Amino acid sequence: MSIAGNVAIDASALWADILESAAFGATAKGGIKRLTLTEEDRAVRDWFVRTTEALGCSVSFDSMGNQFARLPGTDDSLPPITIGSHLDTQPTGGKFDGIIGVLGGIAVLRAMREAGHTSRHPIEVINWTNEEGSRFAPAMLSSGVFAGVFTEVEALAKTDRAGIRFGDALDAIGYRGTAPCGEHPTAAYFELHIEQGPILEAEEKTIGIVTGVQGMRWYELDIVGRDSHAGTTPMPMRADALLTAASIITLVNDVALNFAPDGLGTVGLIENSPNSRNVVPGSVFMTMEFRHPDDAALDRMEAEFNQRLLALCADNPVRVEARRTWDSPAVHFDAACVEAVRQSAASFAYPAREIVSGAGHDAAYMARVTPTAMIFVPCAGGLSHNEEESATPEDVAAGANVLLRAVLETDRRLAP
Amino acid sequence: MSIAGNVAIDASALWADILESAAFGATAKGGIKRLTLTEEDRAVRDWFVRTTEALGCSVSFDSMGNQFARLPGTDDSLPPITIGSHLDTQPTGGKFDGIIGVLGGIAVLRAMREAGHTSRHPIEVINWTNEEGSRFAPAMLSSGVFAGVFTEVEALAKTDRAGIRFGDALDAIGYRGTAPCGEHPTAAYFELHIEQGPILEAEEKTIGIVTGVQGMRWYELDIVGRDSHAGTTPMPMRADALLTAASIITLVNDVALNFAPDGLGTVGLIENSPNSRNVVPGSVFMTMEFRHPDDAALDRMEAEFNQRLLALCADNPVRVEARRTWDSPAVHFDAACVEAVRQSAASFAYPAREIVSGAGHDAAYMARVTPTAMIFVPCAGGLSHNEEESATPEDVAAGANVLLRAVLETDRRLAP
Repeated sequence: MSIAGNVAIDASALWADILESAAFGATAKGGIKRLTLTEEDRAVRDWFVRTTEALGCSVSFDSMGNQFARLPGTDDSLPPITIGSHLDTQPTGGKFDGIIGVLGGIAVLRAMREAGHTSRHPIEVINWTNEEGSRFAPAMLSSGVFAGVFTEVEALAKTDRAGIRFGDALDAIGYRGTAPCGEHPTAAYFELHIEQGPILEAEEKTIGIVTGVQGMRWYELDIVGRDSHAGTTPMPMRADALLTAASIITLVNDVALNFAPDGLGTVGLIENSPNSRNVVPGSVFMTMEFRHPDDAALDRMEAEFNQRLLALCADNPVRVEARRTWDSPAVHFDAACVEAVRQSAASFAYPAREIVSGAGHDAAYMARVTPTAMIFVPCAGGLSHNEEESATPEDVAAGANVLLRAVLETDRRLAP
Repeated sequence: MSIAGNVAIDASALWADILESAAFGATAKGGIKRLTLTEEDRAVRDWFVRTTEALGCSVSFDSMGNQFARLPGTDDSLPPITIGSHLDTQPTGGKFDGIIGVLGGIAVLRAMREAGHTSRHPIEVINWTNEEGSRFAPAMLSSGVFAGVFTEVEALAKTDRAGIRFGDALDAIGYRGTAPCGEHPTAAYFELHIEQGPILEAEEKTIGIVTGVQGMRWYELDIVGRDSHAGTTPMPMRADALLTAASIITLVNDVALNFAPDGLGTVGLIENSPNSRNVVPGSVFMTMEFRHPDDAALDRMEAEFNQRLLALCADNPVRVEARRTWDSPAVHFDAACVEAVRQSAASFAYPAREIVSGAGHDAAYMARVTPTAMIFVPCAGGLSHNEEESATPEDVAAGANVLLRAVLETDRRLAP
């Protein structure tokens, strides 16, 4: 690899940043509660400004509160190569989800500065506002505005459960900027993240070369039978909604297994009615979802499900209405950026594998407007959105090193 | 049949009693809300006293508030032949459940009086306190004390959701008697009831000759897997508690079908956790029950379930703990009393069939202490515990006629 081999991440400084910033919203159980646009969020944003300014950056924020820490390049007229993720957390979040993407970016800036390496493009580290969506739904709101998925007007009007508007909360912490969100050119975007799944750990890989984000379809089902007395209604005279629901749960699983290893199928939520010990259930509301990295495969999963559901409903007194409520097509990351990640991981000889992200990330929206790739590192047991979320200092530093060399290689590749 | 053929139910007077007494606790939807030991219950008890006294009865009540309206026999030293059920209702109850058993008994008294027919045994109509169990659990509390299933001390100490004690509520409406509950000899017990199921209606039978009450076993299941992200957890790495629950729901149904036509199996209640659209469910709490008229068959149902559950749990990362929480053995009614019901129905040429009660009734406890039988009449759609509960005047009168002749035949048979 041609990129500066003498530039490397300071693993201790990166880990110290993780621990230091984890104080903002720290929970008793070792996690973080740092909901977007709260005082805790303001505090970590101020920390982000101080820390990156100390590394020679100029820091700005746009009309959605997205922060940009900019290290100038030798040709500052070039659009920046960007690195980002988010510093907001779930209500009982961990110390890694989103955070290592921003702090890994800061570690890249620090490594360049300490090595005296100046890139040709400016390098920017971005802290996206409200990735989690816990306080203001939906998730990835501000990268969504940046990428033109949502309008700024609709985003600013979102309210939390207390009725507070996103725009007012942004004003309250002093982070509503004047620069219009999205009018910010970028040369490329990289995001380092914990996997939030068990694959890397199980296969003892340090690096996930993320090739994209799988497609996802959500459905809701109304299953309507007839309440009846469990003691007086003979089996052939029943219309047991829960029994039909059980068949559908099994069917969703079967369809996913038919699309192994990439297909996923899940029934996560079920509400049974009247939900009484001695009453044959009369109705069930249920959600289900299918995921697959290939939209054509998703089409086939849906078709197989529909066909088998029809068979399941034939001669069944229980009626089933299934409707698709969300369709999120598969995202394919930029081939050159993915290749930069692959080469970078190989240059360190880190055990690595290609992986498709199962969860949504700011990178999924950024991929719509700029060449994008992601890097995953393992997290213990695949656990995330949990105060016990855990990743090792070594794996986080490895991810940041891969990020560093991928960014520098991309700087080299894209420079005029 | 040898019994007085000239004695018959006054169908109009019986229907008028149903409508008149339905005023106590009448709901806007045409049902009754008459929870036990409330002012509405007091009012219908007073009505019971007035109505039966007008027919020449002496009326008493015991220490549990059970009411006894006694028509003397020619040999008043004989224990009474009793007829009973309950006048309390569910919170959204109908006009028939329990009520036609008491009012059918009153109709028997009226028929005997109007025909000038005096039995050798005294005849008593009983209104049992708190059959429904809606206000004070469990159901059939006072017939249970009468039959020695519960002690009076524990029954009087039961509290409703407002913390009011059963004994205090009984005092408040003035229906705590001094006669010790259960110290009341009986020669036999008959109970007329709506089926609360769909069989008689479906088969166009007017009379169900109830041979007993099916056995019933209740179970609770804890199904424990592992919460995980629906987007990032490959199918083979999941421990999906809801998927295992679905297999168990299907298994319960399969086992019941293997014991057709009498076996019943139901999963009525399910609680899924965390019950979130995009989380693989980590744990499920579920109830299930098996019912069968034959306890030996229930043993075999339970054994088959346990064996197949074991197979289902093999190589399954989800753990299942199933425990039996209630075992109510099958009740077999008195052969001679059942025969009296059969002969009575035949004497009227009513379409009739033998049936096993799927629900519990005061008769199930009375069968422990006295020769007992029951008579069912159809209810529309099998619907009960519902304000729309419905039975026709003709069917109710037919049931009361069968009750009348069964009682008179038993009087003849048992007389010394």
